[in-house]
Amino acid sequence: MDVLISEVGPRDGLQSIARTMATADKKAWIDGAAAAGIAEIEVGSFVPAKLLPQLADTAELVAHAATIDGLTVAALVPNLKGAQAAVSAGAHKITLPLSCSETHSLANLRRTHAQVLEEAREIAALIATLPPARRPHFEGSLSTVFGCTLEGAIPDAQVARLAEALMAAGCDEVGLADTTGYADPVAVRDMVKLVRGVVGVEALTGIHLHNTRGLGLANVLAAIEAGLTTFDSSLGGMGGCPFAPGASGNIVTEDLVYMLEAMGLDTGIDLDRLFAVRRQVAAALDGEPLYGFTPEAGLPLGFRRASARQREGIAA
Amino acid sequence: MDVLISEVGPRDGLQSIARTMATADKKAWIDGAAAAGIAEIEVGSFVPAKLLPQLADTAELVAHAATIDGLTVAALVPNLKGAQAAVSAGAHKITLPLSCSETHSLANLRRTHAQVLEEAREIAALIATLPPARRPHFEGSLSTVFGCTLEGAIPDAQVARLAEALMAAGCDEVGLADTTGYADPVAVRDMVKLVRGVVGVEALTGIHLHNTRGLGLANVLAAIEAGLTTFDSSLGGMGGCPFAPGASGNIVTEDLVYMLEAMGLDTGIDLDRLFAVRRQVAAALDGEPLYGFTPEAGLPLGFRRASARQREGIAA
Repeated sequence: MDVLISEVGPRDGLQSIARTMATADKKAWIDGAAAAGIAEIEVGSFVPAKLLPQLADTAELVAHAATIDGLTVAALVPNLKGAQAAVSAGAHKITLPLSCSETHSLANLRRTHAQVLEEAREIAALIATLPPARRPHFEGSLSTVFGCTLEGAIPDAQVARLAEALMAAGCDEVGLADTTGYADPVAVRDMVKLVRGVVGVEALTGIHLHNTRGLGLANVLAAIEAGLTTFDSSLGGMGGCPFAPGASGNIVTEDLVYMLEAMGLDTGIDLDRLFAVRRQVAAALDGEPLYGFTPEAGLPLGFRRASARQREGIAA
Repeated sequence: MDVLISEVGPRDGLQSIARTMATADKKAWIDGAAAAGIAEIEVGSFVPAKLLPQLADTAELVAHAATIDGLTVAALVPNLKGAQAAVSAGAHKITLPLSCSETHSLANLRRTHAQVLEEAREIAALIATLPPARRPHFEGSLSTVFGCTLEGAIPDAQVARLAEALMAAGCDEVGLADTTGYADPVAVRDMVKLVRGVVGVEALTGIHLHNTRGLGLANVLAAIEAGLTTFDSSLGGMGGCPFAPGASGNIVTEDLVYMLEAMGLDTGIDLDRLFAVRRQVAAALDGEPLYGFTPEAGLPLGFRRASARQREGIAA
């Protein structure tokens, strides 16, 4: 596998819609996605059920997903309490968001940078008490890293300081999240260089991109060229911060996998089976808009990956 | 100007919708686009009015657009007769499409490759008879070059032969057109290398990309990295071959310009004035769907181009 797709639809997608998907349907989604070859799924978020009732069954989903062979089960945690619940449920990976914009951090999580970093230290301490086999991989996600709708651009020095602080607090790695859809290919390249310069190449491998201004897949391409290998995306582009009619918030898993496979990069994912999961989720969420172009347009006639084309003397 | 945007909406967009835009509205669109900084506009196509009544006023539009200082006025021509009309009207650039798929060429233009190449020779001969100041730039556009919905992939040898034949027939340059939306970033890179290897670097500078599978802007990025500098796009993504609801056929001028400017590439285009042109066209075509994300999402707070960010120590 050249690129790891982390499917965030069950968390990011389902927290963004008003209705609550039935737990059985969520399990069927997770099962289908894993069977299609998705190797990592963020199945939910350990936030209080009164804040996000749509995700109240996260512990049950983590436990279910953990029974699927070879699947990395990820969950979002806002704090130590969430991390404790994630560990109890058996999550393999936990992600703590730290908003680079402190204004956004206060508005969204009601916490200062110092408070979030203190949670990070406590989570790392919790993980250290666990037997090695039960320790989840701990990611600190630098959200609003490409800019904030309240603060605008975030100075490099602040991004560097927060990336360093997350690693010092005990994270295994940091991630980048374009919460506001402000990234462009040059910004992605510059940001990867900046943060890797602080935390090292090994400690930054993934990015969470949005498609708010239509640049999502171009930003993926820039990130691949910059050396990143893990991409969050959402089935049907659900979630994220959609602004425009017809615009997904998150990048669309189906289009992302199509692009990568067409480029000859192995995602381990079967596109036809992925399209079948899309139909299954569409049926379970009847009427909910799903985005993405490739499922509608279909694969090109005689579709083959770049590696096969090059063998056959066909540039396209 | 680092990148030339060639706005094809008045031709490619308007030929794809059933209704006919009033000539006065088309002129206002052309005027507005030019005032926003668009330096090249394909204003129409010299096809028989009974085939495309929506474009019957192309000669009048060419003559009007040619009065705008600094604007390159382009037109599509299917054959010698069209080229004669384009020359009479005063077009600065004419584009003759040659479909790399002969099946598609026969289905679409009812002409074999040999017949289209014969038209190319006759057009070149016509141009040679003109005084230098009146000679239009003559582009042969390799359509379906990334594959065809009827034939599938086109062998490299065939693409190379047709590119060479267009130049031998007297074209000033060739262009690439992803008619079917089959291109991906690796295919773009490989195709540019292949065709430039045949015709030379100077004789391939432009590409016409679609967004059928959502890869349009990622393909632009790959094309820029491969050295291309001219991009066709359409206001609101009108035209092309849209398959999916919410999916533009052509790449969207507004999103394209936003991406390039964000990357610090100078397009010469003012985004706010471009959004105003979009509103003007939307009003004139009331009810017609326009695509694109950036006009709805708006520019990032404190938006600045990559060059300015780098000066200020802000990666994004």
